[in-house]
Amino acid sequence: MKHLEVRDLYTNLDSYMDKEVVLRGWIRNHRKQKDFGFIDFSDGTFFKKVQVVYDSNIEGFDDIQKIKTGSAITVEGKVIPSPAQGQEFEVQAVKVVLEGDCPDDFPIQPKRHTKEFLREEAYLRPRTNLFQAVFRVRSVAAMAIHEYFQSRNYLYVHTPLLTTADCEGSDQMFKVTTLDFANVPKTEEGEVDFKEDLFSKQTFITGTGQLHGEAFATAFSKIYTFGPTFRTENSNTKTHANEFWMIEPEIAFCDINGLMDIEEDMLKNVVKYVLEHCKEEMEFLDSFVEKGLLEKLNKVVNTPFVRITHHDVVDILRNSGIDWEFKPGYEDDIAKEHEKFITEHFNGPVFITDWPKDIKAWYMKVNEDGKTVAAVDLEVPGSGELMGGSQREEDYDKLVKRIQEMDVDQETIQWFVNLRKYGTCVHSGFGMGFERLVMYLTGIDNIRDAIPFPRTPGNCNF
Amino acid sequence: MKHLEVRDLYTNLDSYMDKEVVLRGWIRNHRKQKDFGFIDFSDGTFFKKVQVVYDSNIEGFDDIQKIKTGSAITVEGKVIPSPAQGQEFEVQAVKVVLEGDCPDDFPIQPKRHTKEFLREEAYLRPRTNLFQAVFRVRSVAAMAIHEYFQSRNYLYVHTPLLTTADCEGSDQMFKVTTLDFANVPKTEEGEVDFKEDLFSKQTFITGTGQLHGEAFATAFSKIYTFGPTFRTENSNTKTHANEFWMIEPEIAFCDINGLMDIEEDMLKNVVKYVLEHCKEEMEFLDSFVEKGLLEKLNKVVNTPFVRITHHDVVDILRNSGIDWEFKPGYEDDIAKEHEKFITEHFNGPVFITDWPKDIKAWYMKVNEDGKTVAAVDLEVPGSGELMGGSQREEDYDKLVKRIQEMDVDQETIQWFVNLRKYGTCVHSGFGMGFERLVMYLTGIDNIRDAIPFPRTPGNCNF
Repeated sequence: MKHLEVRDLYTNLDSYMDKEVVLRGWIRNHRKQKDFGFIDFSDGTFFKKVQVVYDSNIEGFDDIQKIKTGSAITVEGKVIPSPAQGQEFEVQAVKVVLEGDCPDDFPIQPKRHTKEFLREEAYLRPRTNLFQAVFRVRSVAAMAIHEYFQSRNYLYVHTPLLTTADCEGSDQMFKVTTLDFANVPKTEEGEVDFKEDLFSKQTFITGTGQLHGEAFATAFSKIYTFGPTFRTENSNTKTHANEFWMIEPEIAFCDINGLMDIEEDMLKNVVKYVLEHCKEEMEFLDSFVEKGLLEKLNKVVNTPFVRITHHDVVDILRNSGIDWEFKPGYEDDIAKEHEKFITEHFNGPVFITDWPKDIKAWYMKVNEDGKTVAAVDLEVPGSGELMGGSQREEDYDKLVKRIQEMDVDQETIQWFVNLRKYGTCVHSGFGMGFERLVMYLTGIDNIRDAIPFPRTPGNCNF
Repeated sequence: MKHLEVRDLYTNLDSYMDKEVVLRGWIRNHRKQKDFGFIDFSDGTFFKKVQVVYDSNIEGFDDIQKIKTGSAITVEGKVIPSPAQGQEFEVQAVKVVLEGDCPDDFPIQPKRHTKEFLREEAYLRPRTNLFQAVFRVRSVAAMAIHEYFQSRNYLYVHTPLLTTADCEGSDQMFKVTTLDFANVPKTEEGEVDFKEDLFSKQTFITGTGQLHGEAFATAFSKIYTFGPTFRTENSNTKTHANEFWMIEPEIAFCDINGLMDIEEDMLKNVVKYVLEHCKEEMEFLDSFVEKGLLEKLNKVVNTPFVRITHHDVVDILRNSGIDWEFKPGYEDDIAKEHEKFITEHFNGPVFITDWPKDIKAWYMKVNEDGKTVAAVDLEVPGSGELMGGSQREEDYDKLVKRIQEMDVDQETIQWFVNLRKYGTCVHSGFGMGFERLVMYLTGIDNIRDAIPFPRTPGNCNF
């Protein structure tokens, strides 16, 4: 008999009430009494568990009572209205079959575990309430992003991860090789002989799909990437990981104002989608992870985002009367403490535009003042920078000048520069760190808990 | 004035007919006559181009006639019924503005280019008809896969690419490092000192997300991955690349027969989705790339797939009367020539099951005969193996025995083995190479033309 998924049971309860069903899944908790037993049952298809009850009339009552938390079971039983408060139904078991047992040393016991402990058991933590919620939201948010862009006719591009292009500085990138480290081949001049490497060149894992994305934007007008990204940063903060996922849309015939419209519209739609599709998970996160999460997100959906220049932000910071650890400067980046203040000041997401050119990337369009670039960061309460974007320099000569000023290696990206030679156009794009979004949506405050198997300096386990 | 996308124009033609519109995009071809001009205009949002016509009354007629193929332009004009055959409408321009010009040496001229030539210009080839079709189908097929699994409540899992687990043999995997190749740090014993590497261990890019996917399947029941995958294979065939995308679903409480049901249902749904969403592209591919493509795919949607054991396939091959280059053997793998014969013999997709255990992976469930495993490959006409899957060994002791027999390093995957200790269950999964699918859907016969920027031995350009 084909088994029923718990999600189907919850979403079509009427059609199963008083019927026999077969369920397969895991015991999250097993409470035994002399003549009864109660099993908190989950198959992971729905956030809420099913209460399975059995009594001493069931075949193998004594053996069933011995089945431990964590075990896989098949339950045959009848869906009945529940006498217990807070649940509409329960399943009265007529048969419980042990599929895979579980010893007492199972780390995920029905009690509160710290997030630090669960990171050590990363392969088992998806079986907890917290990570059932976080990883379902992550999955649904990913779908929301695809849905948003595809329904608006953006092309999804798989940009390559292996690259020889040195666009962000090779110190930021992992080196990739098939060479034997213990025995690196050398040329007669004593240099590493990359001719023997699989690609006959030194190769890296890229930190961005933007360059390749731009090539596709000049053919399809509107594209997005969504894939893994890597940084070698040796930094142990709550918001940095060495492997993470990024979304990088790129839009032709779009200036920085059009870009902000898209960023805002996308974020609002993704938040709405997740609120609609993860009702149970979001209520749990609102109660147990970030009080006020639902209120925060509903407000995001319904309020226009603030747009303000970097210059004006610095004015506000300087006039705030606060004794900043980092003094706000018109030529300087915005520190974490400033981000926090500004998003609280405006009580919602804030686009900060027109940044000093020396602290931003070489491919951004320099404004007419010659001092700032058409860059925009979106800062959100609680999570800081969620998206970073810019209008790109579309003029060949100006771009080459910036490349030289910023000491970027032009040779490996000449093809990218050529996009300005063959039918160039005003265009803009942004990047959104997907884990940052998941943190914002779930209230989770550490990136290690927003990604299935986190990689951070010194940590590449599982 | 906000510009209109060509897709909107085509899909809502009635509401734009006889109206003024603004379009932004690129000139694919420019035919000039003394008092007229015709521009084949594309913004890449729709496969079909728009014919823009202008006459000598337009302001700047002489300058407009000088605008070259490849240039970016803004067109203001009126949508009118077209007198030309084969097109319902054209745009009578009242204004043409050059946004970005294009020199004569633009490689993508309005003539037939070989695919080999276009690979050398990979960053520009998306501007050709062929790659407009292939990469749109690729994008839509990716969405079809997400749509299929998400609407059936599978969890999308981002499994890590960086790994220390040596599950497929480290010769198959790229090494990843932050160490300086020219100056590899050594221990006192003269070994490479990975303590100085970012993760303090030797690290690889993984060739599969299966192991991590199984961890999530034992928590959410049904999961899928969809991400990039890497192999170091030094092989220059039409079907191998060193970087490609894979889909790897994993389903708890599902045996090999259930797995085949899912594979078949998914493929049929993805084909149907692409046929519905890429009508123009598929017609083009049917006409110019693979004659009979549409017929082939429509048949796939409507015909049950054959299911046959490896043993019976060998019988058919041996009884075929063909003088094979590789003699079919009951203990051997199936060669390309055999795949071809079998899919032609059955004239459609064929599931081949129950493979000799010695040529298959260590994690597959050994059948009761002790000789074969519960593995299944799906072979499709023209493209060969499209999916490979198996029921997994769910018994702890049997799995450990196979790990030892096959000489796999158990230490780095002990966590994976432990999944058999904590509530194990019957479960199955498969992998589908996404480029293989794109080739099957488009008729493209070389993987280098199915992926935006291909990476093959000696080739990591752009």
